[in-house]
Amino acid sequence: MAKGITTRKENYSQWYNDLVIKADLAEYSAVRGCMVIKPYGYAIWEKMQAVLDKKFKDTGHENAYFPLFIPKSFFSKEAAHVEGFAKEVAVVTHYRLKNDEVNGGVIVDPDAKLEEELIIRPTSETIIWNTYKNWIQSYRDLPIKINQWANVVRWEMRTRLFLRTAEFLWQEGHTAHATSQEAVEETEKMLDVYADFVENWMAVPVIKGLKSESEKFAGAIDTYAIEALMQDGKALQAGTSHFLGQNFAKAFDVQFANKEGKLDHVWATSWGVSTRLMGALVMAHSDDKGLVLPPKLAPIQVVIVPIYKNEEQLNEISRTAVKIKSELESKGISVKFDDRDFHKPGWKFAEYELKGIPVRLAIGPRDMENGTIEIARRDTLEKSSRSQEGLSDYISDLLDEIQTSIYQKAFRFREENTTEVYNWEEFKEVLENKGGFISAYWDGTTETEEKIKQETKATIRCIPLDGENETGTCMYSGKPAKYKVIYAKAY
Amino acid sequence: MAKGITTRKENYSQWYNDLVIKADLAEYSAVRGCMVIKPYGYAIWEKMQAVLDKKFKDTGHENAYFPLFIPKSFFSKEAAHVEGFAKEVAVVTHYRLKNDEVNGGVIVDPDAKLEEELIIRPTSETIIWNTYKNWIQSYRDLPIKINQWANVVRWEMRTRLFLRTAEFLWQEGHTAHATSQEAVEETEKMLDVYADFVENWMAVPVIKGLKSESEKFAGAIDTYAIEALMQDGKALQAGTSHFLGQNFAKAFDVQFANKEGKLDHVWATSWGVSTRLMGALVMAHSDDKGLVLPPKLAPIQVVIVPIYKNEEQLNEISRTAVKIKSELESKGISVKFDDRDFHKPGWKFAEYELKGIPVRLAIGPRDMENGTIEIARRDTLEKSSRSQEGLSDYISDLLDEIQTSIYQKAFRFREENTTEVYNWEEFKEVLENKGGFISAYWDGTTETEEKIKQETKATIRCIPLDGENETGTCMYSGKPAKYKVIYAKAY
Repeated sequence: MAKGITTRKENYSQWYNDLVIKADLAEYSAVRGCMVIKPYGYAIWEKMQAVLDKKFKDTGHENAYFPLFIPKSFFSKEAAHVEGFAKEVAVVTHYRLKNDEVNGGVIVDPDAKLEEELIIRPTSETIIWNTYKNWIQSYRDLPIKINQWANVVRWEMRTRLFLRTAEFLWQEGHTAHATSQEAVEETEKMLDVYADFVENWMAVPVIKGLKSESEKFAGAIDTYAIEALMQDGKALQAGTSHFLGQNFAKAFDVQFANKEGKLDHVWATSWGVSTRLMGALVMAHSDDKGLVLPPKLAPIQVVIVPIYKNEEQLNEISRTAVKIKSELESKGISVKFDDRDFHKPGWKFAEYELKGIPVRLAIGPRDMENGTIEIARRDTLEKSSRSQEGLSDYISDLLDEIQTSIYQKAFRFREENTTEVYNWEEFKEVLENKGGFISAYWDGTTETEEKIKQETKATIRCIPLDGENETGTCMYSGKPAKYKVIYAKAY
Repeated sequence: MAKGITTRKENYSQWYNDLVIKADLAEYSAVRGCMVIKPYGYAIWEKMQAVLDKKFKDTGHENAYFPLFIPKSFFSKEAAHVEGFAKEVAVVTHYRLKNDEVNGGVIVDPDAKLEEELIIRPTSETIIWNTYKNWIQSYRDLPIKINQWANVVRWEMRTRLFLRTAEFLWQEGHTAHATSQEAVEETEKMLDVYADFVENWMAVPVIKGLKSESEKFAGAIDTYAIEALMQDGKALQAGTSHFLGQNFAKAFDVQFANKEGKLDHVWATSWGVSTRLMGALVMAHSDDKGLVLPPKLAPIQVVIVPIYKNEEQLNEISRTAVKIKSELESKGISVKFDDRDFHKPGWKFAEYELKGIPVRLAIGPRDMENGTIEIARRDTLEKSSRSQEGLSDYISDLLDEIQTSIYQKAFRFREENTTEVYNWEEFKEVLENKGGFISAYWDGTTETEEKIKQETKATIRCIPLDGENETGTCMYSGKPAKYKVIYAKAY
């Protein structure tokens, strides 16, 4: 257990919070519910962004930027959207401050009131479809495949670093298509892009599925999601991709002339992932000593710590360390050599365990004599000694192995914590004592879903896309089941 | 002259606006003063970001993210800052909307009024120094060298795409140091980084200098700036770097224990460039046919246009074009092969001139027979024909030559439009009839500066860093001069 970090067993929620703060990922700011993403946390987010951005471009998308502000009236244009998104938002009402002649400081200038209030975007469908209206006349203008990296604001009452904050960073893709089929294909393709990223970079296994009616995006026909399981047995929705049908095109009157010259409304998708992924990354892998980062997203993959008694030893070790560093770097591995003299090796070991550096190398005087080096894996905490010969190839392979191993560990955990359940008593029992994903039949009604939620706080995470088409009876109502779904308590 | 674009001679300001819109860089949004940055414009901005971001990291900076919102009271803490920055801002007063039961739609919920209003950041010194307070105890915590890529809002009344918009994108560096000297060195280093970027990537020559008292940043001790000259003879401030002294540390009570254990206030810098650079890029180089982009920032550096009468010819040309494309790409050159059949070559030529693609290649049936290719330079509009042999080396060199040539043209323009002036009549005459930079003696008083501004709208752009230490008399007041400065009308 690392200093100042609550153990998971003691209090999982507190462990998470301690870890995010102690590992220098983020902290709360002076503004309620808003966080400061600190350099180490931001470096991980930048790695995520770089990988995702490349994937978006490789699948034919371009980046653009739309305004932070949305006129209030825009929200009323799509009926479901206004219900889901126009409530807990930040509202700009004035555009000027003036000196407070009486008390000093500044006050809002009452003369500078906006005619129409502006909403800080909680999501950008409305402003973007209002813009697309001017860009689309004919089928030749389609598809439009745009992504935006942006900050958004949702005025959450209860906030948690990365998982739920008033302001967060995200990307939102917004595409426009000539046919329903093309839009559905896009929706599914982007879900696959997300799943690929979360599984193969973040090393977190996910279930791809459809959201139920009550859980889908406000304004969508279908919401696809990827669901991941955290170590406390709760689910986390890691990304969503929405098939919006013609809803926003109709709301903003976006029509195009097809090849036959006939006018039709445009088909839409939107999809997004956010800094919430940072929360998933922390919660999926880390332990009581600190972060465990998958090598592919670790800002520093290898740290070298010298162990010495005097300056002469340090100088000698440094020469070797610098050589090893440059060999590793030539293989594209990011390396830090920590030769700071005001911290002891033990302090450094704990620090890099806390920060989740995948591989730690230590070199002492005996290693120098023997041509060896000590290698410690962060994920398993195993230590071994080996020759300095051929080290860079070994480390390169080791990083791959750690990446795979972290994924497999999370995968096994999910397997062990996914339970097939066929009746209501069993459901409550499993949910209470074991948690995790519960796979069970559902009659497909919102009524049943709602009752289960009220009684247990568990929700339908998704209707898995690869679900089998078996028949069965709803574990709650006993009626014929429509789907086999995944239930869980969720973040 | 390109279709729909006013010529520079006719109306420079309209030419700029037409160009930004027709070349698909940006457009106004439904929100007053806010722009949509379109994919082509954003692709250029992304290239700028990538180069700058690398330069910041190479000079030891890390990225982080601070909140969009700043509590209103923070602005009052630094006396000069509140005067300069707390006025034309977007003010959030409420955090919820509710259904309008009477008229439909949504209205601001009067019950959801914030206790303290939040300001959308116009710049982040206050929220960042309020945060640094908790990060800094001792000299070991220094320096802190952080950069943030973010959107900011300043409620400008008169807006112009990229040059002055209510919301804009920028980066803001905020550093904290143990000594004044280190902070000044940082300020100057970042000015050099900006100058290097603007000159060697944007191909725009700049003058590095200090701002006068009245033009400096609200809260700075010294503001350094780089000033560029646009084709209409007006100056554009392309980047600023501020030495903030201990002003913000004092305002937010940020002290550190030095090596001797004595408490002292921390020394600060901040520095930023914004999407305004996009405006400078357009205005510095482009012509009546459209954009002229420096190859280093052009999203597409080379376009290949096939010229054909039938599908057989197209097929044959395509094979060659694809081969050329891949050879160029292997040299790191970005290439588009435009084989769309619904546009004629002439249309495509005009389109790529408008978009400022540095090099256009055209291949027709005769080229196929002769093994030749037509090469057109966007900057000079020169065309030539050459063998397809060794083409990729030739194009690679040509792109370098264009980069240099664009810079040199802008440099010559600036030389020709910088005038040494020694008396007030001459000053007014040059400003009126020639414009450009005017180099003249100044007595160093705000009074003189203000009078010149009132009479002519010209301002002191900067006190050049490489200015000679000659003595002279102020061209306005006739008093002994303190500096020789650069005057101009400015964006």
